[in-house]
Amino acid sequence: MKHPPIHYHDYLNIPSLLAGQKLRSEQLGKKAHDEMLFIIVHQTYELWFKQMLFELESVVDAFSQSSVPDTEMGTAVARLERMVEIQKFINGQIDILETMTPLDFLDFREYLYPASGFQSFQWRSLETLLGLKSDQRLNYNEQPFYKSLAPSEQGLMQKLMQSPSLFDLVEKWLERTPFLQSEGFDFWKKYQESVEKLFAEDRKVVETSSRLSESEKQRNLAQIEGSLNTFRAIFSEQDYKKLIDQGYFRISAKALQAALLIQLYREQPVLQMPFRLIQALGNLDENMTQWRYRHSLMAHRMLGRKIGTGGSSGHEYLKAATDKHKIFSDFFNLTTFLIPRSMVPPLPKALERKMNFQI
Amino acid sequence: MKHPPIHYHDYLNIPSLLAGQKLRSEQLGKKAHDEMLFIIVHQTYELWFKQMLFELESVVDAFSQSSVPDTEMGTAVARLERMVEIQKFINGQIDILETMTPLDFLDFREYLYPASGFQSFQWRSLETLLGLKSDQRLNYNEQPFYKSLAPSEQGLMQKLMQSPSLFDLVEKWLERTPFLQSEGFDFWKKYQESVEKLFAEDRKVVETSSRLSESEKQRNLAQIEGSLNTFRAIFSEQDYKKLIDQGYFRISAKALQAALLIQLYREQPVLQMPFRLIQALGNLDENMTQWRYRHSLMAHRMLGRKIGTGGSSGHEYLKAATDKHKIFSDFFNLTTFLIPRSMVPPLPKALERKMNFQI
Amino acid sequence: MKHPPIHYHDYLNIPSLLAGQKLRSEQLGKKAHDEMLFIIVHQTYELWFKQMLFELESVVDAFSQSSVPDTEMGTAVARLERMVEIQKFINGQIDILETMTPLDFLDFREYLYPASGFQSFQWRSLETLLGLKSDQRLNYNEQPFYKSLAPSEQGLMQKLMQSPSLFDLVEKWLERTPFLQSEGFDFWKKYQESVEKLFAEDRKVVETSSRLSESEKQRNLAQIEGSLNTFRAIFSEQDYKKLIDQGYFRISAKALQAALLIQLYREQPVLQMPFRLIQALGNLDENMTQWRYRHSLMAHRMLGRKIGTGGSSGHEYLKAATDKHKIFSDFFNLTTFLIPRSMVPPLPKALERKMNFQI
Amino acid sequence: MKHPPIHYHDYLNIPSLLAGQKLRSEQLGKKAHDEMLFIIVHQTYELWFKQMLFELESVVDAFSQSSVPDTEMGTAVARLERMVEIQKFINGQIDILETMTPLDFLDFREYLYPASGFQSFQWRSLETLLGLKSDQRLNYNEQPFYKSLAPSEQGLMQKLMQSPSLFDLVEKWLERTPFLQSEGFDFWKKYQESVEKLFAEDRKVVETSSRLSESEKQRNLAQIEGSLNTFRAIFSEQDYKKLIDQGYFRISAKALQAALLIQLYREQPVLQMPFRLIQALGNLDENMTQWRYRHSLMAHRMLGRKIGTGGSSGHEYLKAATDKHKIFSDFFNLTTFLIPRSMVPPLPKALERKMNFQI
Repeated sequence: MKHPPIHYHDYLNIPSLLAGQKLRSEQLGKKAHDEMLFIIVHQTYELWFKQMLFELESVVDAFSQSSVPDTEMGTAVARLERMVEIQKFINGQIDILETMTPLDFLDFREYLYPASGFQSFQWRSLETLLGLKSDQRLNYNEQPFYKSLAPSEQGLMQKLMQSPSLFDLVEKWLERTPFLQSEGFDFWKKYQESVEKLFAEDRKVVETSSRLSESEKQRNLAQIEGSLNTFRAIFSEQDYKKLIDQGYFRISAKALQAALLIQLYREQPVLQMPFRLIQALGNLDENMTQWRYRHSLMAHRMLGRKIGTGGSSGHEYLKAATDKHKIFSDFFNLTTFLIPRSMVPPLPKALERKMNFQI
Repeated sequence: MKHPPIHYHDYLNIPSLLAGQKLRSEQLGKKAHDEMLFIIVHQTYELWFKQMLFELESVVDAFSQSSVPDTEMGTAVARLERMVEIQKFINGQIDILETMTPLDFLDFREYLYPASGFQSFQWRSLETLLGLKSDQRLNYNEQPFYKSLAPSEQGLMQKLMQSPSLFDLVEKWLERTPFLQSEGFDFWKKYQESVEKLFAEDRKVVETSSRLSESEKQRNLAQIEGSLNTFRAIFSEQDYKKLIDQGYFRISAKALQAALLIQLYREQPVLQMPFRLIQALGNLDENMTQWRYRHSLMAHRMLGRKIGTGGSSGHEYLKAATDKHKIFSDFFNLTTFLIPRSMVPPLPKALERKMNFQI
Repeated sequence: MKHPPIHYHDYLNIPSLLAGQKLRSEQLGKKAHDEMLFIIVHQTYELWFKQMLFELESVVDAFSQSSVPDTEMGTAVARLERMVEIQKFINGQIDILETMTPLDFLDFREYLYPASGFQSFQWRSLETLLGLKSDQRLNYNEQPFYKSLAPSEQGLMQKLMQSPSLFDLVEKWLERTPFLQSEGFDFWKKYQESVEKLFAEDRKVVETSSRLSESEKQRNLAQIEGSLNTFRAIFSEQDYKKLIDQGYFRISAKALQAALLIQLYREQPVLQMPFRLIQALGNLDENMTQWRYRHSLMAHRMLGRKIGTGGSSGHEYLKAATDKHKIFSDFFNLTTFLIPRSMVPPLPKALERKMNFQI
Repeated sequence: MKHPPIHYHDYLNIPSLLAGQKLRSEQLGKKAHDEMLFIIVHQTYELWFKQMLFELESVVDAFSQSSVPDTEMGTAVARLERMVEIQKFINGQIDILETMTPLDFLDFREYLYPASGFQSFQWRSLETLLGLKSDQRLNYNEQPFYKSLAPSEQGLMQKLMQSPSLFDLVEKWLERTPFLQSEGFDFWKKYQESVEKLFAEDRKVVETSSRLSESEKQRNLAQIEGSLNTFRAIFSEQDYKKLIDQGYFRISAKALQAALLIQLYREQPVLQMPFRLIQALGNLDENMTQWRYRHSLMAHRMLGRKIGTGGSSGHEYLKAATDKHKIFSDFFNLTTFLIPRSMVPPLPKALERKMNFQI
């Protein structure tokens, strides 16, 4: 009533939406029926990428503030969770593409050269804005990845590569966590004490065991020492720096500590949403990893493999990228440093009070 | 090499694809974040509808031939199965839309008036081309459904309504089934004999039972008579005609018999693909039914309900259409007339031979 | 080390788990291949029902406390969300069952009499513990539903029917919401003012419109009045009582108000988890509804339908139950009473402060 | 009526089914809520594995016949497709397990030692019966895989390892394909001619191109030669034998040729079901591969990773097995040898006739 009426047809730009599927096979040779599916699958992907970027940008905006208001956390988390929901959904879309057989693909494959999913600006933007760093990326065709984008997009991508990513912003946000060091509670110190105690107990169980032979005892003690060393690696600033240099970690020591604190005290009201945020980031990364892996299988299926030549094929690139292009692995790897609930240092009452609502 | 090179960006018409999301809330008032999701969900639906229509049209073409070559059956079935795969997939898409809360929808709902999914030309085309008849449809806003389409689409729809649907073509194809009546084998007669025998045996079990009291026997015998009557309804031409008039069936008697024959002898090589075809049609219908039902739930959730007024709401229309707009119910209802494998009349060897390959 | 070692085989009770599939067709007649699938599908359902009950009971326990600690809200919500995840998953399981054709089902259907999914104690427990009331249930075989359970289960069910359900507990919890009435803020009064203002504005737009004829104006004004009446129905205690009597609502007036408050101010930290809780309850109900509907379609497909007899069939019972057995409809229908964000009464600063964390 | 009545409760062995979830944490320490989910997820997996084995065994039986009757092909394919459907479904089940956080897992992880999914007899049986060879398997804990099974299962597994797998039987069945060599048509010779012709044409396009410089021509010609060599590798018996020795292929030359023939002429009625069979085998393998990969991600998430020690972790084992344990890769790799439809040698009319039905 208050606004001009509009028809579904115009609101959704249906005419232009449905005019965008031109079969190259039809234009250049013989119409290949399955090319339509190929185009539509990729176009729906691009629409969903647009949606994911739209959500991601809004979360990046929220985290670009010097301090993220608590009233915005619920929305930020819900938007990341929506991204996760979209990912799960579009990962299943490959099932539809695979109703096209390799022989059907061969009917139009020759017309597509050199178009490739590697040239998707939006997918690359998603990776970049989430936090994939250029020096972490595999080269593609012996060139930096952005060279494969359309000329009009290369500048935009370089700009995006220089702006802060979600990874960067979440790292800064974690570093600002106020509970790492409050009066009467030094989280990192307490945590280390718990870890040492935990392993001391394990050691004692072994040493006093009547079931184990002397040599079994030695083997077990060595294992315990090994596990403890894994923990100790993050206890010293220098050692942690080395792990970063070796590529084991990317996140700053302080942000890592905050992420651990959020995990271990996640039931505290003030940490409930931060905990969900960290979970959502891990889910995002896991789903992107699955997507890459699934694509490498599909590329293998559709394109086959070369025998005896040195050239790397599409699916091998994709498989290599599957692991290498993970962004939030550090949150995944947090598990390594969890300790059993019974060993988690208790919070002082005053601190618990602060973590709760005013009411 | 043989063809001009092309970039992913141009092949998929990315610029125009990604320019088609104009937030009305932004143009007319205050930008509502979730309107983007709303638009993208509907646009991806429309792309998938295009794909489904594309597959459906190719199957309709195949079945428009005076005789469908056996070499085309595999492809026809595969394309219907692809449609089923797409349906299953997009039915899940509502989960994503429902990450938008009703309050978020309210942020832009007022700008959409009177746009509505009921105005989707492609969805209506799918229903029509599959075989939904105009007189079977619920009115929408007290008008025939096609009046709600964009003016440019109404003529196209009326033309489509007059051309043969997949239902019509499959019916004709079933009627041509050569095995209903071959030398030495009258399927329909044999089938009736089996049915009568089956019920005679059931009757005997009851009559000779020592566990049942006289009144229980009477009740059981009445039930058996009732079930037998269900079968007998399709044995007489006149009775079947009545059932069609009453809306119990739509398919012709001969096509129904052929569909039963295909079910009962589906392991014969010549019937393996026809059996899959019938299954695919049932799946298509079931998935469309689920989609309508799911949409009625979503509409309820997003729009709420009116209290005390007489006006029918969106979700009530959708719920009513859920059952009424089924197209291939007859294939669903076939089950009613199946008989146990042990009672299926054996085929003469010569006929079995004909149903197999030359080799 | 500290505990006795255990093998996967024993931990999961594999031998007894895998001994529980006895094909009745094999015991009583001729082995029917697909009976295995039928059994396994139902057994996995029962295992998932056990899991859902396990989660539900823990949430019921949490809400049985006189006051639910804020530190337990995150876990309660996560468990309800897990239930939703399980539901979504097992709703898809019907696709697997439907790889069994009706003719294959006929191979063993006669051996199952009168076993039926209606006899599932765990499913009935889930409905009851969530809050489905006995007088809301359809009769089954002209008897109260619990009469169809195994004798050993009927007593347990009657006990469960008398203990508080999640619906009851959530209603009480909502009624305790401390923000409905705090110094300087009477939510319900403010909300009513906003509603009246909203409709006054709508009325003015119509009355001053130059595009509308006099009769159109009258029609529009009548519509506005109708919508406003929908709202007014919940403004008066007496009218609301009537709506409860008529079955429009089940929830108490005070709990309804609290649920609305949570929706409208969900970004406040203290309401973020309650909002997710309400969403999860709506999702649970929607998924159960879909499950019932999907089952009615499957029953139709597997069993066919009777013609001309009066007896109601399985799928018709299931379809009727689909709507009638909804439990949290009131949360669904909340949408009816949402108002645009711009009209939501602002919270006093002091109240906003209380809704935030201490820190 | 004819059979003794049975209740749902007894038919499904509900009491014993629901008695099989004993929380070790409760028995040995403090009840960990999420252990129930852990048990139920694994038990439903085992039930589905039983179902898959049941289907697989029936297909193995069918293919153990000296000649597979055409009337059994439809059922065999439907059962493999059902297995694929089950796989897709249970691959999604990991989403539910991942609603358990690593910290929750830590609450009971210590009680499970050394139980592990690697000890699942049914999963190992599935792999073995499909065709995974012992010498293809990674060692687990420096021992052959079957040593990790329960003692009672090790003998059964060794027996299974010696009986023919589906891979073996399908290979034999392919070798028996009657169309490789019929009067007037030598498929393998014709296929080779087409391949040579295809590459000759490509070569000519390059040589006569006016767009390419001399050095570009040389590079292109070298590439063409490389691709042609890939094909030639399967043209000579000796070369193919070498590829088998090098692990590029496992399937016999003759079976490979038959599989190619089926792909290229799949629209012929007699090949429609064989084509679907080959597709189903590829899908089975792809889904198992995805399952392994997904599990490696989950193991990583749940268990973290060791730093600086040499010990391989669970998720690294799983990732390594992901590729190495593929069974039907040869069917995947078939794509490598497809040629465009326009180059597929036409069948003689007489042969086409033989491939069709008698009718």
